[in-house]
Amino acid sequence: MVMEMTEEMSVAGISDRLIAAMDRTGCNACVGLDPVLEKLPLAIDRTDPVHAIREFSLGVLESVAETVACLKLQSACYERYGAAGVGVIDELLALAASHKLPVILDAKRGDIGISAAHYAAAAFERSSPASWLTVNGYLGSETLEPYLEHGGIFVLVRTSNQGSAEFQSLRLDDGRTVSDAMADMVAALAAPRRNAAGWSDVGAVVGATHPSEAEQLRNRMPSVVLLVPGIGAQGGCVADCKPLCGADGHGAILTASRSVIYAPTQHGELWTEAVATAAKSLAHETGTMAGLR
Amino acid sequence: MVMEMTEEMSVAGISDRLIAAMDRTGCNACVGLDPVLEKLPLAIDRTDPVHAIREFSLGVLESVAETVACLKLQSACYERYGAAGVGVIDELLALAASHKLPVILDAKRGDIGISAAHYAAAAFERSSPASWLTVNGYLGSETLEPYLEHGGIFVLVRTSNQGSAEFQSLRLDDGRTVSDAMADMVAALAAPRRNAAGWSDVGAVVGATHPSEAEQLRNRMPSVVLLVPGIGAQGGCVADCKPLCGADGHGAILTASRSVIYAPTQHGELWTEAVATAAKSLAHETGTMAGLR
Repeated sequence: MVMEMTEEMSVAGISDRLIAAMDRTGCNACVGLDPVLEKLPLAIDRTDPVHAIREFSLGVLESVAETVACLKLQSACYERYGAAGVGVIDELLALAASHKLPVILDAKRGDIGISAAHYAAAAFERSSPASWLTVNGYLGSETLEPYLEHGGIFVLVRTSNQGSAEFQSLRLDDGRTVSDAMADMVAALAAPRRNAAGWSDVGAVVGATHPSEAEQLRNRMPSVVLLVPGIGAQGGCVADCKPLCGADGHGAILTASRSVIYAPTQHGELWTEAVATAAKSLAHETGTMAGLR
Repeated sequence: MVMEMTEEMSVAGISDRLIAAMDRTGCNACVGLDPVLEKLPLAIDRTDPVHAIREFSLGVLESVAETVACLKLQSACYERYGAAGVGVIDELLALAASHKLPVILDAKRGDIGISAAHYAAAAFERSSPASWLTVNGYLGSETLEPYLEHGGIFVLVRTSNQGSAEFQSLRLDDGRTVSDAMADMVAALAAPRRNAAGWSDVGAVVGATHPSEAEQLRNRMPSVVLLVPGIGAQGGCVADCKPLCGADGHGAILTASRSVIYAPTQHGELWTEAVATAAKSLAHETGTMAGLR
């Protein structure tokens, strides 16, 4: 009984910290940092790609850290530069920690047994750990449990890409879709791992580009915080996300990437100023919509 | 027409090289390199974990490189050590290239759009590229295509873990399982990308721990090379894999890990000698079964 309490408390701490960050910033906005060399501001010297990606990423992080509830790092954008790129992730995690900014490492990992434990270690046992990791549940819920000893997870349920229906919308013999079945697996994993407010350290990725389906998935996963990518450049709309946020406004993290990190500059302002302004605007819009300000 | 031919030829080169390696070694065996610090031979100094993992991995690779058809690197085992671990993957890929040994980077990646392209770059555009990458198709086949411009993929269809049935064996309204649907998606992706012998650069992961299901999946994916983990320590049996290998013996890659890389030493032999002996035994057994020797 005592052990159960301790486990529950340690686990609940992860969602508690995320929700505290939403309350502190008055928003449920997340900036997705997925830099592509060709799109960086002209002010950044691109001679050395890793140096350029590093300078840009640190600049974005500093510009948004006090404004939004969390940061999503797209691991692929750094991993493509090998060991040097992974080193940049370390720097970003350390800088985020100094701002007490929760970081979702968007690495979409998924493997069995000891390999899952290794991926958990890679995310949560580095010198400055990520708070959350995105994961793929195709291999079954047993493969998601190793992560939960050390951090939070967002399980891919319904992704924001155009072709996601090809597999995720297949219909099961009991009437559910494949996405629904994944959602039910996530809900079962989440239920015993809730904080005092009812939110779990098991979250789910549900794209903003399928609003009606997202709302139905919200209902299937009552204690699950939704990570909602696709706001802004991908076409997802903040107003459509209101039903996803729950009564207390903490039930969804709305993620915009390109519309913030590549925000156009005006009247000779610095690119970091444009990013900061775009982040403030996103925070205002999402916070007001969710009733957090 | 000319462009189509060129694309097909460049892509077919990947499966051609794998099949050439099977013919050169007379086997369809693969050694899975997934080192765990606690299990390394006592002869290896574990004071510095990354150094120990590096020394062990290079030793295994040298011991099996001329014996087996390919090597599978479990990315998680290296990634858990951050940038330094990723550097070890680079060294292993370079050493494998010097032996002309095809490498499957078992990283189980899966993401959308430009992120998929980044993961493809991380696997196939490094200084010594991997030949194949394991990927997760939950996000749909459009997310698998970016990899195919530069390398081969093995898509997770039916994994070898005990709990894989929870999701993968769910039944669709048309009678197929979720695994079957994934297999059909893989088969469709594979069909236009075949070499002269009929094998594609789109492969599939099908665990040896479910032999009857594996055989049925073989039939659903006629042009697809199967990557079959779970031989040896996980309980999969070489003889059960005969129906997976196809008429020419090239249709399956049988992967053993722990039973080879931690082979017990006898009469004071070096640990690398024990690994070499176990690899030869695996090559003999699989090669004879598949009719490749």
